[in-house]
Amino acid sequence: MNDDVYMQLALNVARSVSGQTNPNPPVGAVVVKHGTILGFGAHLKAGKSHAEVHALAMAGSEAEGATMYVTLEPCSHHGATPPCADLMIEKGISRAVIAVKDPNAKVAGSGVAKLEAAGITVDLGVMAAEAKAVNKYFNHYIRMKMPFVTIKAAASLDGKTAAHTGDSKWVTGEPARRDVHQYRHRHDAILTGVNTVIADDPSLTTRLPDGGRNPLRIILDHSLRTPMDARVINDAQAETWIFTERTITDEQLDSFKEKRHVHIIPLDTLDIRTVLQYLGEQKVMSLLVEGGAAVNGSFLESGHINQYVQYIAPKLIGGKDAPSVIAGGGFDSMAETLSLSILKADMIGEDIKIIAEPRKDDTHVHRHY
Amino acid sequence: MNDDVYMQLALNVARSVSGQTNPNPPVGAVVVKHGTILGFGAHLKAGKSHAEVHALAMAGSEAEGATMYVTLEPCSHHGATPPCADLMIEKGISRAVIAVKDPNAKVAGSGVAKLEAAGITVDLGVMAAEAKAVNKYFNHYIRMKMPFVTIKAAASLDGKTAAHTGDSKWVTGEPARRDVHQYRHRHDAILTGVNTVIADDPSLTTRLPDGGRNPLRIILDHSLRTPMDARVINDAQAETWIFTERTITDEQLDSFKEKRHVHIIPLDTLDIRTVLQYLGEQKVMSLLVEGGAAVNGSFLESGHINQYVQYIAPKLIGGKDAPSVIAGGGFDSMAETLSLSILKADMIGEDIKIIAEPRKDDTHVHRHY
Repeated sequence: MNDDVYMQLALNVARSVSGQTNPNPPVGAVVVKHGTILGFGAHLKAGKSHAEVHALAMAGSEAEGATMYVTLEPCSHHGATPPCADLMIEKGISRAVIAVKDPNAKVAGSGVAKLEAAGITVDLGVMAAEAKAVNKYFNHYIRMKMPFVTIKAAASLDGKTAAHTGDSKWVTGEPARRDVHQYRHRHDAILTGVNTVIADDPSLTTRLPDGGRNPLRIILDHSLRTPMDARVINDAQAETWIFTERTITDEQLDSFKEKRHVHIIPLDTLDIRTVLQYLGEQKVMSLLVEGGAAVNGSFLESGHINQYVQYIAPKLIGGKDAPSVIAGGGFDSMAETLSLSILKADMIGEDIKIIAEPRKDDTHVHRHY
Repeated sequence: MNDDVYMQLALNVARSVSGQTNPNPPVGAVVVKHGTILGFGAHLKAGKSHAEVHALAMAGSEAEGATMYVTLEPCSHHGATPPCADLMIEKGISRAVIAVKDPNAKVAGSGVAKLEAAGITVDLGVMAAEAKAVNKYFNHYIRMKMPFVTIKAAASLDGKTAAHTGDSKWVTGEPARRDVHQYRHRHDAILTGVNTVIADDPSLTTRLPDGGRNPLRIILDHSLRTPMDARVINDAQAETWIFTERTITDEQLDSFKEKRHVHIIPLDTLDIRTVLQYLGEQKVMSLLVEGGAAVNGSFLESGHINQYVQYIAPKLIGGKDAPSVIAGGGFDSMAETLSLSILKADMIGEDIKIIAEPRKDDTHVHRHY
């Protein structure tokens, strides 16, 4: 039972660095002996020390005979840093409590094997569900080689994202709008459609009180209509990748040449799966979609929604022609719709925030995999 | 402080009979002496004894010197029953704790005055907010002479009430659909548009495990297109009133003559306010609107929404042409939208249920009053 207490601490530490460790997963570690915490640590940044190294450094010589809690199986291979399993053996850890195995099938289990071979008692699977939730972006990416996709939407109680005139400032309140920037901070990339760029000229940067990490900006733009005076073209706060189709002219391409932070990526056909595969190859592990109804519709139809975050404002907008959250063709029947599980439904300021994910048993989730 | 405990009991008793007392309000009463509950009662049905009568009967001669808690000011006039204030004086009640005054301006305060004139200590305003919530349908009706209007809507997370094909069986789960019948039971009337009658042929009756009270069925039907084979025309489980316009022909009218439970009401212009005023004159105190997007849009634009109940199903339907909760013209800007307060947001089965009401400071609420 105490195992849960210490693993919870390790998970909290891991959660706190979520988003800053890519392309590595967030990991936390805690060293405990005789009910006393001797050290803890987290993997802070790719290329830097793993969680176990920090925790063992804090524990110093007291680590001998201690139990180590780690949210992810310790590595057994030389990467950017020496193998953590070797260090745990060297420092005399006597028991290792591990939440989950390495999601990378090629190395999964090898860290555990190395520890056991050295006589360390290994308990695997403690708070595994929680650990998987903390690492869900990473686990998805490792398994699918495509980024984990979060759709963010904001609508009135009657499901409108704007008035029929297009006015949408603001549907939700300040706390909800601030919360969105936390999502930007924690995602590698943010995606929207060219129509949103034309209509709203968003900067798509992270604006948290303490700054925050700007995501890579992705624009879906079939015929390269992104205006040359758009913010995403002119401010260099983050790279902007514009996915378009090969039918665009050389002249169109040339016009973007001077913008060093803008990359035009022409595809044979601009479809969601191809874009996600391309992003996966570029090590983009998580993607926040802040699109209009058409872009959201494309994601729904492609089957590539991994998480759905919706803010619902306590207001009624009305209007047959007011835009809604998801357009596109849509499903034909209730039986075909994408079923979600509600993970959380809470108030945020005066709005309601809902976090949902596709049901594990829903066939849509896997239909394109 | 103990006052709250006893008033809470009186309010719980009142709440339990909500919907069965129309055109009277639900009222609860409790008699207490030396910390012992001697009697309690509720007004069960119009024309029958008031709450105070039941409570005093239960207390018998012990009522002498006791305190009486009532959720609404006792009546001082002869109605269907003798005045309760007189009975309280006669039985020797020494203190009366009253949540709220009578909402009817003509008699408000006269019950209190009568009690005080007889030497009874009166404490007014205990748990007044809760009492107003219990009586909100009634209070609204007394003040406005129009029924309290509850809009009920069910939609997917992306705000659709059906697929683009019209399929809507079912958006929400069983528990949410059962919950709707509680609302039908507690409302005097239920309203929908002729398009819903044509598309779904609903019976609009209350189907609770133990039966329940069928509301009066109201159809809005500009050109009297309600099909002769519709359930609301052929089953006589409840009356059906069809509001239409004077432009309909005598032939159209004649076709409904044999249906004794169907009444056709031709208006100069079929608008929401006129319908509500007509219903008010007929002592319809509460109206549940289970309309499609167009009917909901008419209510939004008319400014006559008093409560908004929405079930949100954890699914994504998508589709530019899938119907949403509220159509009509809609508001032009965010500043003009109808702002609501969320009273409750809970899970019901796998769905989310939200109860909201117009903000008291919102000008829309009163713009037609």
